[in-house]
Amino acid sequence: MPGPKQISLGLSMRYLGYHAAAWRHPSADPDAASKFSHYRYIAQTAEKAKLDMVFLADGVGLRTQDRPPGALRRSHQTFELEPLTLLSALSSVTSHIGLVATASTTYNEPYHVARKWASLDHLSGGRAGWNVVTSWSEIEARNFNREKHMDYELRYERAAEFVEVVKGLWDSWEEDAPVFDKASGIMFDQSKMHTLHHKGKHFQVEGPLTIKRTPQGRPVLVQAGASEQGLEIAAASADVVYCSFFDLEPARAYYANLKGRLAKYGREPDSLKVMPGLTLFIGRTRQEAQDKFDAMNALVDPELGLSYLYQQMGDLSAYPVDGPVPEPPDPRIRSMAAKALALARRDNLTIRQLYTKVAAGFGGRVFVGTPKDIVDSMEEWVEAGAADGFNLCPPVLPLGLDEFVEMVLPEMRARGLFRDEYAGPTLRENLGLVPPRHRHAP
Amino acid sequence: MPGPKQISLGLSMRYLGYHAAAWRHPSADPDAASKFSHYRYIAQTAEKAKLDMVFLADGVGLRTQDRPPGALRRSHQTFELEPLTLLSALSSVTSHIGLVATASTTYNEPYHVARKWASLDHLSGGRAGWNVVTSWSEIEARNFNREKHMDYELRYERAAEFVEVVKGLWDSWEEDAPVFDKASGIMFDQSKMHTLHHKGKHFQVEGPLTIKRTPQGRPVLVQAGASEQGLEIAAASADVVYCSFFDLEPARAYYANLKGRLAKYGREPDSLKVMPGLTLFIGRTRQEAQDKFDAMNALVDPELGLSYLYQQMGDLSAYPVDGPVPEPPDPRIRSMAAKALALARRDNLTIRQLYTKVAAGFGGRVFVGTPKDIVDSMEEWVEAGAADGFNLCPPVLPLGLDEFVEMVLPEMRARGLFRDEYAGPTLRENLGLVPPRHRHAP
Repeated sequence: MPGPKQISLGLSMRYLGYHAAAWRHPSADPDAASKFSHYRYIAQTAEKAKLDMVFLADGVGLRTQDRPPGALRRSHQTFELEPLTLLSALSSVTSHIGLVATASTTYNEPYHVARKWASLDHLSGGRAGWNVVTSWSEIEARNFNREKHMDYELRYERAAEFVEVVKGLWDSWEEDAPVFDKASGIMFDQSKMHTLHHKGKHFQVEGPLTIKRTPQGRPVLVQAGASEQGLEIAAASADVVYCSFFDLEPARAYYANLKGRLAKYGREPDSLKVMPGLTLFIGRTRQEAQDKFDAMNALVDPELGLSYLYQQMGDLSAYPVDGPVPEPPDPRIRSMAAKALALARRDNLTIRQLYTKVAAGFGGRVFVGTPKDIVDSMEEWVEAGAADGFNLCPPVLPLGLDEFVEMVLPEMRARGLFRDEYAGPTLRENLGLVPPRHRHAP
Repeated sequence: MPGPKQISLGLSMRYLGYHAAAWRHPSADPDAASKFSHYRYIAQTAEKAKLDMVFLADGVGLRTQDRPPGALRRSHQTFELEPLTLLSALSSVTSHIGLVATASTTYNEPYHVARKWASLDHLSGGRAGWNVVTSWSEIEARNFNREKHMDYELRYERAAEFVEVVKGLWDSWEEDAPVFDKASGIMFDQSKMHTLHHKGKHFQVEGPLTIKRTPQGRPVLVQAGASEQGLEIAAASADVVYCSFFDLEPARAYYANLKGRLAKYGREPDSLKVMPGLTLFIGRTRQEAQDKFDAMNALVDPELGLSYLYQQMGDLSAYPVDGPVPEPPDPRIRSMAAKALALARRDNLTIRQLYTKVAAGFGGRVFVGTPKDIVDSMEEWVEAGAADGFNLCPPVLPLGLDEFVEMVLPEMRARGLFRDEYAGPTLRENLGLVPPRHRHAP
């Protein structure tokens, strides 16, 4: 009889954690996000715990820049290291954990992305992942010669073509193209080198790549598409999807929708792993967990807290922070804000309670409880068909990871939900994904 | 009394070395250029020897692609890793050696380059260097949505503006901008954050960077400009210049020309280090060195050898390989080819002898001799004002580095020309460069 379904686990490690006041926590070194030693500790701890991967979200600009100045200087979403360089540096001090870095398809070129991630896959012995995103903010646009960000449709069209080009370049060389025959002086079998000759609407890319086929065949593709176009890109190409849901039912519907699209691309449902984000406050008792949560939230200055509602609702500083949430003065509502606003109405939240919802997990799902509560909930989501695993977004790093490893993992292992050892040295193996077929393979 | 002038030493470690037959050498692992362990050994060996830096040249395409197919498959200038990811991975397994990676200003964006190299400077504790190049080949153009490469004037104009933007972004934050005051909740002093607001002909970049000021103030800037525009970029901004000269006299003239341009940018002559490339065949006796050189050259198949003359002189396969060098069928001559051709005329070389000159050091200076001969020559170049140091380009790696460390360095140290210990942990300190001033510093 097979055991329970294994849960995949990733760890987001951007900034000092996913709580707006993370840097003020007594355990935190507020300068840690600029220090390699901080990330090395996190990656090595996650690897010792046998997690699937560490992950770095990214934006190519100071996205907090358009918040009121008083809030900007209070935000730790400011200083960071660049994901690709950081994960490359981590590749040589780890041996099994996956390394997933974000790169935008809006302000990059596919040849660069294909080459850099192929290189990281070689450097790490098959542990590279690329999180494919598009860039939507004008702050980023202004760092790349534009006044406005690219139109939504165009951005996703470009993204889809970008991914196809990158995958094409990753098939530049068949596995057995190199022959390295010193006696005859023949380095490789040229019939197994493939130039891409791509000529599309957004890109013209000749190829080939100057990097031989990588240990994983190609790096793992990660995506976070929630829109129609995003879902199609994910269904066509992604190995892993990150998503953000507060509640089980919409997560289940999303999961079914996405998995239902795989068949038309000739893919099996389990060839793609859905991993919702999860920010945990963990206590030996529920009271202890709640106390930790409250103590962190108390560290969010209202000036900073209001700024998390600023982009979606404009300036609410004229309203009493412990009064009800007013209709947003500005009608532009993003999908994440719509969810938060619905929540405020449903649960009758004050402004402070609402911004705390966003500030405590940067807009993602926050769960407060004991290890048993947490694993119960994880199991429920997996059994309900809402998740194949979770992308952990600890409120404070490295503390939140240490607590997860110490308290939650033993409970998961006791129930047979998480492995004791890695399945192999590659990320693809540990996620249980089949090796990709080379497009020119016989 | 001050001792003799110290010689700076860099190490180029692209592919399997700078000889066309490097991969066929009995000591070589022909697959090494795709293996991290190979580069780790080289970087750690160079660091143990106290060399200033390791360096990776780069091109964003398979530059050998337009050679005849029979030659392409014989070339080891094919499989590699990407410089930035590789040097980042090396940053965590080394502690003192400089890490210099190439990035093209023709097919990149300044925000990406500024951010990635700032990140590498943090990761390495102040050892990052950026080798600024422009891309001239149509092979590369075709990987970046173009049929033709960018016009020379435009390319250099773009490069000059690119460097200015990158330097501007590196000054986004003053040294003491972060305050990290947990009690008040103030993360940084916003008056010390500087948005760039750059609006130029080629770029519009707002800033700021999301990375705080780096350990070196800014990464070391390396350049290799030989043209008028290249010399001006170097004089304005470079800390190190790589160059390629077969003979002392033109090297001396170049050195004087370049150093003479510094004053108009308010710079001292020793604020820029000139480091010609040098490929060494080292023997205990001259005969041993010559035997090594001849043995390596014998491994160059004429099909491959002729291909090193192909771009400059077209197809010479119809001519006897041991006969005289004919006038090139194709009139397009590049600067490197002109030098090689002049050499052929001066020394009355056969085709084989000419391609060997190029194939043995990829167009750079090759020197065959004993440790004493080699250090005599180095000393002569430094004393004559033709070099501040040398960029070593070993014919085979790692063998050529091991031999240099074992045989040549002791001779340099015996003459007081090379240090026993690093001056400090940063590349800038070891090169003897002063820290750059922040443009907004009081």
